[in-house]
Amino acid sequence: MSLDAVLARIDQDLDDSLARLFEFLSIPSISTDPAHNADCDRAAGWLAAELSGIGFDAAVRPTPGRPMVVGHGGEGADILFYGHYDVQPVDPLELWNSPPFEPRIEDTETGKVIRARGASDDKGQLMTFVEACRAWVAVTGSLPAKITLFSEGEEESGSPSLIPFLKENAEELTRDIAFICDTGLYADRVPAIATQLRGMMGDEITVTGPKVDLHSGSYGGMAMNPIRVLTRILGGLHDDAGRVQVPGFYDDVEEPSADLLADWNGLDFSTEEFLGAVGLSVPAGEAGRSALERLWSRPTAEINGIWGGYTGAGFKTVLPSKAHAKISFRLVAAQDPDRIRDSFRDWVRAQLPEDCTVDFHAHGGAPASRFDTGHPAFAATRKALSDEWGMEAAYTGMGGSIPVAGYFKSILGMDSVLTGFGRDSDAIHSPNEKYDLESFHKGIRSWARILAAL
Amino acid sequence: MSLDAVLARIDQDLDDSLARLFEFLSIPSISTDPAHNADCDRAAGWLAAELSGIGFDAAVRPTPGRPMVVGHGGEGADILFYGHYDVQPVDPLELWNSPPFEPRIEDTETGKVIRARGASDDKGQLMTFVEACRAWVAVTGSLPAKITLFSEGEEESGSPSLIPFLKENAEELTRDIAFICDTGLYADRVPAIATQLRGMMGDEITVTGPKVDLHSGSYGGMAMNPIRVLTRILGGLHDDAGRVQVPGFYDDVEEPSADLLADWNGLDFSTEEFLGAVGLSVPAGEAGRSALERLWSRPTAEINGIWGGYTGAGFKTVLPSKAHAKISFRLVAAQDPDRIRDSFRDWVRAQLPEDCTVDFHAHGGAPASRFDTGHPAFAATRKALSDEWGMEAAYTGMGGSIPVAGYFKSILGMDSVLTGFGRDSDAIHSPNEKYDLESFHKGIRSWARILAAL
Repeated sequence: MSLDAVLARIDQDLDDSLARLFEFLSIPSISTDPAHNADCDRAAGWLAAELSGIGFDAAVRPTPGRPMVVGHGGEGADILFYGHYDVQPVDPLELWNSPPFEPRIEDTETGKVIRARGASDDKGQLMTFVEACRAWVAVTGSLPAKITLFSEGEEESGSPSLIPFLKENAEELTRDIAFICDTGLYADRVPAIATQLRGMMGDEITVTGPKVDLHSGSYGGMAMNPIRVLTRILGGLHDDAGRVQVPGFYDDVEEPSADLLADWNGLDFSTEEFLGAVGLSVPAGEAGRSALERLWSRPTAEINGIWGGYTGAGFKTVLPSKAHAKISFRLVAAQDPDRIRDSFRDWVRAQLPEDCTVDFHAHGGAPASRFDTGHPAFAATRKALSDEWGMEAAYTGMGGSIPVAGYFKSILGMDSVLTGFGRDSDAIHSPNEKYDLESFHKGIRSWARILAAL
Repeated sequence: MSLDAVLARIDQDLDDSLARLFEFLSIPSISTDPAHNADCDRAAGWLAAELSGIGFDAAVRPTPGRPMVVGHGGEGADILFYGHYDVQPVDPLELWNSPPFEPRIEDTETGKVIRARGASDDKGQLMTFVEACRAWVAVTGSLPAKITLFSEGEEESGSPSLIPFLKENAEELTRDIAFICDTGLYADRVPAIATQLRGMMGDEITVTGPKVDLHSGSYGGMAMNPIRVLTRILGGLHDDAGRVQVPGFYDDVEEPSADLLADWNGLDFSTEEFLGAVGLSVPAGEAGRSALERLWSRPTAEINGIWGGYTGAGFKTVLPSKAHAKISFRLVAAQDPDRIRDSFRDWVRAQLPEDCTVDFHAHGGAPASRFDTGHPAFAATRKALSDEWGMEAAYTGMGGSIPVAGYFKSILGMDSVLTGFGRDSDAIHSPNEKYDLESFHKGIRSWARILAAL
């Protein structure tokens, strides 16, 4: 049977698969920083060449931003696969124990890991699929399905080119079902298919008080300090019970069905382990909700960045002209990103002192997603994962946003099977990101099984 | 009469005086940034050499931090003069219209100005005294008083070496009266002697939540965000009426005497002009207080800097491990910096969620100062200033801190006459700092007259 041969080939070829992944990881394709535009081009070119090498008709496709990579090949079940080749910024760089773009294998207490920015999010995950295809081609001479591989390079920077590209290439990209590999194992052990995802809306605020920076001795007590205004407003973003105070924020939030809630309650979630791993013990967020509700079905507001005044070494008694913050909202159910953005901005403006002004800068928005698990690809994937990992795969929710899944649905009418092999300990947006070697290896094997089952 | 000859000499020598000041201004002696330690040494050496050149017995005196400069010379009235040779940082550098350490004369709508970091605070002011001494020596062959000139290089970074140096050299530095030139004209026109100054206490907070930066999708709703904690606490630093909410903050605050308040109310202060010049119109600070009370006799709390999370271009959905702020309090009357620091820290700790920790880093503290205007140097200075500027000099308060004045009193038992020639428009802690050429010229002439009157 060819699946067994393919799995054997994957095991045999693991060192070469890693060598290829390391080439990919050594390209600093940070999409949020224009200084790395050429690196993003390089990563796209590298990926297209790899795909061509295993029989895809692949090309780098220009956009007004970072390019897309699209490859077509094979016959059979008509699927699209999505992963992204761009990565998060690496600051604070001084907290990395090894250079983020010099990938290495490290022995740790929990096994061997691949250490690099993008190891887990998302180059390592993307390559699990590519290497599974490679093994199929090596063993059988052809791809096991009619595959469209689609990779973008702006996932970490709001995907500004994605919607126009999907619209312009709708026919080419609309397949029977999509697979997205950008998620993780449930509780770091159970293979999982995420069937609902929170959406996201990002906004940036700049509050301006005096038109120039002032000396706090000469002006303190008379001139309004924009940091005071900003902390006053953002300090009131949540009430004591953790509820977001923007008017109407909860209007379109729905409770999960009793069945789904029962499924989630049956999952073996440990708040103590989950928070303990990051040095915390008390759940934040809304009082009176279970942990999985807080993470999967309740919306949130987070301040992702704040800055203003003097932030260097020593002290400067400045009363600054401007103060800034980046804020994101995780959205659920029918919450509309544009409506929430408007409500948030109105709420900020209403609290602004007469003398101050505020400017806003939008940073993307995508609604939450829920998928129809009736499509046979869900059951096929569930069985393949269960076989590979030796335990029943779970249908889960997800706290993070995979906006592309929403656009596949809204623009192309295509449901997505979201599965992946990351772990919470991967530190995907933090220093010292890693991907377990087991995740990479069993990830490749999982895709071989899924492709066989389709 | 030799005063007239000295004044004539000052007028004649102005271009050379400017050339010397420009040499001094071109040394980037930023004391708060260790990268500029060698520049501070260079500035101290330059000043000592200038003093030696006009007959002072001057030397650079080492400390554990930046060095002091002390010079002695002359016979007669026994005075100390103080100015500082260090300057503020220059960020944000991109807002400067010319390089901060390439001094130049610019024509502006309000006359010629000297443009450079330190032009007004405090190299330009310090040099008004040095140039007055030079003119006296040139005309009469000797200094007009028994002068101890004392300059430090840590005024902009909390003066960590000042107290030990004053204690170790108390006998050498304790003179009959001190003159400090680090202040400005009242309302940009009236020559002024500041007889009371607010004190200052600076503190830095770091709030830690999770032990690493997290992804706000994966952890938002469960993990506490330290920026949320910090904004919540600092957003409550003032109530709606602008009163500082730290318990006991106002315990040692006193009302100014009815006489002094009447003097202040008689000054021609325009809130519209003062705030209008910086693009504001509504007084911040405590409701129900006059502008000069808010600036001179009421304490304040200001957030001078805040930072945490992702602050670069684009967006990063991080839930950070740490959030930071620099906060300063302007103190009045008998408010004790150490007691206020303790109260502030207790107040912060009391609001901290169970899961978060807070670290504090002290950035200096000095109580408010008030001087005994009965000493004859006050009347002599007032008359000299009135003669030079053609209008009656005023006794004023000051919103900023000149901690050295407090230490001269508490450690050396010496009162200080604070006078100077800066203007509010000098932008002393901001980009594009300037000192009016008129301030420099008439400042030198003012000191010549004060020295003659002693």
